[in-house]
Amino acid sequence: MGYTDTDWLAINTIRILAADATAHANSGHPGAPMGMAPVAHVLFNKFMKFNPKNPDWVNRDRFVLSNGHGCMLQYAILHLFGYAVTLDDLKAFRTVDSITAGHPESHDTPGVEVTTGPLGQGISNAVGLAIAEAQTAANFNKDGHKIIDNYTYCFLGDGCLMEGVASEACSLAGHLQLGNLIAVWDDNHITIDGDTNVAFTEDVLKRYESYGWHVITVADGDNDLEGIENAIRQAQSVKNKPTLIKLTTTIGFGSLNQGTHSVHGSALKADDIKQLKQKFGFNPEESFVVPQQVYDLYHKHSAEGAAAEQEWNSLFSSYASKYKAEADDLIRRVKRDLPEGWEKHLPVYTPSDPAIASRKLSETVLSKIEGVLPELIGGSADLTGSNLTRWKSANDFQPPSTGLGTYAGRYIRYGVREHGMGAIMNGIAAYGTLLPFSGTFLNFVSYAAGAVRLSALSQERLIWVATHDSIGLGEDGPTHQPIETLAHFRALPNCLVWRPADGNETSAAYYVALTSKHTPSIIALSRQNLPQLEGSTIEKAIKGGYVLHEVEGAQISLVSTGSEICICIDAAKYLAEKHNIKARVVSIPCFEAFDAQSKEYRLSVLPDGIPSLSVEVMSTMGWERYTHEQFGLNRFGASGAYKDVYKKFEFTTEGVSKRAVATIDFWKDVPNIRSPINRAFQQLI
Amino acid sequence: MGYTDTDWLAINTIRILAADATAHANSGHPGAPMGMAPVAHVLFNKFMKFNPKNPDWVNRDRFVLSNGHGCMLQYAILHLFGYAVTLDDLKAFRTVDSITAGHPESHDTPGVEVTTGPLGQGISNAVGLAIAEAQTAANFNKDGHKIIDNYTYCFLGDGCLMEGVASEACSLAGHLQLGNLIAVWDDNHITIDGDTNVAFTEDVLKRYESYGWHVITVADGDNDLEGIENAIRQAQSVKNKPTLIKLTTTIGFGSLNQGTHSVHGSALKADDIKQLKQKFGFNPEESFVVPQQVYDLYHKHSAEGAAAEQEWNSLFSSYASKYKAEADDLIRRVKRDLPEGWEKHLPVYTPSDPAIASRKLSETVLSKIEGVLPELIGGSADLTGSNLTRWKSANDFQPPSTGLGTYAGRYIRYGVREHGMGAIMNGIAAYGTLLPFSGTFLNFVSYAAGAVRLSALSQERLIWVATHDSIGLGEDGPTHQPIETLAHFRALPNCLVWRPADGNETSAAYYVALTSKHTPSIIALSRQNLPQLEGSTIEKAIKGGYVLHEVEGAQISLVSTGSEICICIDAAKYLAEKHNIKARVVSIPCFEAFDAQSKEYRLSVLPDGIPSLSVEVMSTMGWERYTHEQFGLNRFGASGAYKDVYKKFEFTTEGVSKRAVATIDFWKDVPNIRSPINRAFQQLI
Repeated sequence: MGYTDTDWLAINTIRILAADATAHANSGHPGAPMGMAPVAHVLFNKFMKFNPKNPDWVNRDRFVLSNGHGCMLQYAILHLFGYAVTLDDLKAFRTVDSITAGHPESHDTPGVEVTTGPLGQGISNAVGLAIAEAQTAANFNKDGHKIIDNYTYCFLGDGCLMEGVASEACSLAGHLQLGNLIAVWDDNHITIDGDTNVAFTEDVLKRYESYGWHVITVADGDNDLEGIENAIRQAQSVKNKPTLIKLTTTIGFGSLNQGTHSVHGSALKADDIKQLKQKFGFNPEESFVVPQQVYDLYHKHSAEGAAAEQEWNSLFSSYASKYKAEADDLIRRVKRDLPEGWEKHLPVYTPSDPAIASRKLSETVLSKIEGVLPELIGGSADLTGSNLTRWKSANDFQPPSTGLGTYAGRYIRYGVREHGMGAIMNGIAAYGTLLPFSGTFLNFVSYAAGAVRLSALSQERLIWVATHDSIGLGEDGPTHQPIETLAHFRALPNCLVWRPADGNETSAAYYVALTSKHTPSIIALSRQNLPQLEGSTIEKAIKGGYVLHEVEGAQISLVSTGSEICICIDAAKYLAEKHNIKARVVSIPCFEAFDAQSKEYRLSVLPDGIPSLSVEVMSTMGWERYTHEQFGLNRFGASGAYKDVYKKFEFTTEGVSKRAVATIDFWKDVPNIRSPINRAFQQLI
Repeated sequence: MGYTDTDWLAINTIRILAADATAHANSGHPGAPMGMAPVAHVLFNKFMKFNPKNPDWVNRDRFVLSNGHGCMLQYAILHLFGYAVTLDDLKAFRTVDSITAGHPESHDTPGVEVTTGPLGQGISNAVGLAIAEAQTAANFNKDGHKIIDNYTYCFLGDGCLMEGVASEACSLAGHLQLGNLIAVWDDNHITIDGDTNVAFTEDVLKRYESYGWHVITVADGDNDLEGIENAIRQAQSVKNKPTLIKLTTTIGFGSLNQGTHSVHGSALKADDIKQLKQKFGFNPEESFVVPQQVYDLYHKHSAEGAAAEQEWNSLFSSYASKYKAEADDLIRRVKRDLPEGWEKHLPVYTPSDPAIASRKLSETVLSKIEGVLPELIGGSADLTGSNLTRWKSANDFQPPSTGLGTYAGRYIRYGVREHGMGAIMNGIAAYGTLLPFSGTFLNFVSYAAGAVRLSALSQERLIWVATHDSIGLGEDGPTHQPIETLAHFRALPNCLVWRPADGNETSAAYYVALTSKHTPSIIALSRQNLPQLEGSTIEKAIKGGYVLHEVEGAQISLVSTGSEICICIDAAKYLAEKHNIKARVVSIPCFEAFDAQSKEYRLSVLPDGIPSLSVEVMSTMGWERYTHEQFGLNRFGASGAYKDVYKKFEFTTEGVSKRAVATIDFWKDVPNIRSPINRAFQQLI
């Protein structure tokens, strides 16, 4: 309370920086920053606890700009409070290799917690951040040592509220009673198509109440700083519900076109900026100017944040002296390190072990490692019994009042909300103390494609336990049988896609997924049983591709993944017996891991001189990169017992053998057959 | 009203058929059919207007089973009412090549309107069916000739209510005041993870009220047939709102395990089925038995439906005599035919025409053909001004009370709801009288991946106008720049993915999209301007791939799409001038259309004897199928002016030329270079 002219000067400085930067770039979205400058000012200067000199302080308050197109608001704030974002960085807004990209990217810009822009993701990430805070607090806080108690704040616009991913995440947030989550809806009545009433006339607050949220209205978000402050304070006081504050603002406040969609996504015209600066008492001839009082005001708050961190450090020292194991664990976790020797817990198999579905092998991995990796936090989109994602002794992450679990729990019941689950996992991973994994059928990871893409782009470590990975799921039929899914995610940069063939390969998949600090993984797992292979080891499989079955004088390489590997093994025997053909068998459980090996190694796996045939019961797309010929399924599957379905599409010993013979025949006159590993030039990375 | 023992016999017959079929298949979901048999009975026997002998009657009531796993309910109903689904078909439930797949598939089973199973899709399809009905009625009905007035009914479960796609579609349905849509929520408290209260404790009815729906509760869905009937009748009377009926049922009603999740997704045990049959007065030793009274009851209703169709035929004859043009138009549309000569309206370009962004070329196509194709109904996920999907004279599809349009309108403001939009388009297309197209950025078609997959599987004709198709969108940056998107959808069976390079290719893309009656299309369009090419024609581009620039004695084929074609043309010139290299240029705007051409033709485009290099600013995945070497972008993009971004990644004349030289060099010692078009064996289709 007690707002002064300096506060308004600060608010108007944010507005003008946003107008200047978008004008300088001749691109971007000035409207949201100008409309939300007042609430940003109040939130950051009165409530947010952070130290710009250490953006990684674990107990900082988190801020998410879900309407990421308004990122000049965030960049301006980061600059003004003293993060490593300079005025020159603001001038470089939306130019190549700047740290001020067109939408906020967490791996590029200090102080940006999660990558936003694709609508609905940020608020869902915020739910994940709030879950992670609650879980970390429940597990680490001790009497007199509340080392984790931060809030997660989120700004979002109408677009975010329309997106289904946000609906999913916010329904779950209400169920989970996340009182540490405070969201501010920029109710500016404007979307790209014009007034929101062309498509969006629902009663948003009523909807959020139905989810179990607390809701507050601030009618004049342009002027009523006290009202904003009161609303946030009230939200903080509600401990058992997330809060949505409806803040009515004028988009592009101050512009001649304020309140219209013309200020949403285009820079203001020169004369408009001129009048804006005059109106706000700035020199209209100057750009990117910050009055010293504004720096002083904000740096004072930042200094308080730095002091708060110091105080926290003392608290944490005291904590460490009393609870050494917990303190060490927390320190380790935020470095994304795993405990020494954890990998010894990964199960190892020999060919005499029984055939087991790889979804079940995955369950065994999780059960073996959960004890040594307390940061693992699992879940499923209502397919727990099918995905086998919950170890026996797991406790559910639930509000204690439900009687179904506690906030210390390590298993999340996401409900049938795949996209929300993906976006929430991004938030959990971004918090820094937890390592999320979640299950659904592989086919329905596609529902979450928007979130998976952001996992990869923002370099979050998390794992999709993607079971029922092919037509091998059988009876559920084509609606559930993935065809294009692996090709899709293999084409996504910075995403590890695994399809293990047995127990050792499943352990390898988890090993690489867990030790890849900056990369998400999708592990595709079978519903049907798979034999333990002769020749597989964790060490070999970690390379992403290896020779499973070598043979002197081989005439063909059969190259495969997952459940088709054992068919290739049988085919190799059949080819030897019936056709006197020598076939070697190569397993490539992960393209991306294999691509990271030396060319020499890759050529040893896929050598020159003989043709190769890939075998995988889904789209052949992408296999041409590794093999000369491809046997796959470039059509939809069929509903029936899995063996019948495999037979229908000729994924049998005979079906593979026939194509191997055809491949050898087709390539027999080609001298010096060149492995596809050889390339004329390197790809840009 | 006045329900008798025969009604209950019919209801129990449905239950037992569901139990028998899932037991016979030893797979499937008996719980939902057994719980929903009463409401299915009341709905189909008291309300639904249909003729099983002509499942295509345009004014039939539509039924959608959004909880598609309960499909034995639908198959039993279809059989009992006399659709072409026999008892043997029920016995073949979930076996290969049956018409009773694990989830309902519209192209396989007569009487199934849309393909469901992936949760949330069916209710969203139902919104589309209701939109199509409203729009068709508004355009075709005349005083005294109400030829279109059907209802759309939908059953859905808790899973559908949790999915974001359903939230999006239902919010829009409320805005659109679709009084012809009646949904029944099977409130059985059970999901796969157990009780719904582990994850789903929101107040669903309040949420639907917030969307603008009318809501009704039926507390005893197991016994209260009158209550169900009253609820549906009340829903029919509410003309300006869709209705959600909350129907509390007991999942697996009659089973020893009724009301538990053990009856959700597994067949009942033999002794359970036995007691079930005894309880309901059936012979426990017999299976798949239908009492004649039940056939009689249902066939009587079907006969009334047939009579209603006869009556409608008379009405339509009268209509046709007064409104010949409209009647002919409707008859044409339901055959999915286009009017003769429509294609003459497609714009044709010559190289002297100015450079234009392909999104703008798409706008021109739409503007030129909308007059001759009144079935076109457009829209955008709140990006109208960017997607350029709305022709100037278009009217919005809106409830008249909003003052923003009418139900006769042909442009839908979908809001920021990509997944909902995709699923709604599937419903609109399935209705049979309209041909939907909608816009968003290519990157955000991924949000709708679940719906796009079902467009392809269920063979619906519709078009995604996917603008901002690459890093060429520039400043918005990596969050918005597609890398994996084309690979994803190219790997999806039965989906045409176009990336036209100029005006003629854009016209060709629309030509093939509109004339492919059973295939969805995605047309990827540039934000930036593209020159009109020498050598492009609509006729050539329709083939999906063609030689744009031939040269005698060519040493390399440069193969490309969209905005990189003109870079290849420049590179070909540069190679001739600087390196004395002869390069031909091939355009492949659509893999799928090209793959459908004869091998001879494809080899003429991509001939043996010389190496080929593909050039496309996104994932190279899939290009190995057509070219020897690939220049692409297997990493995320960058935020900046598009020319700077292209330069950063070397998508320039020099960058392409350098790689062309490397390609020629790399392949120079290989004799008889074989085109990748040559394959050892054919793929299964």
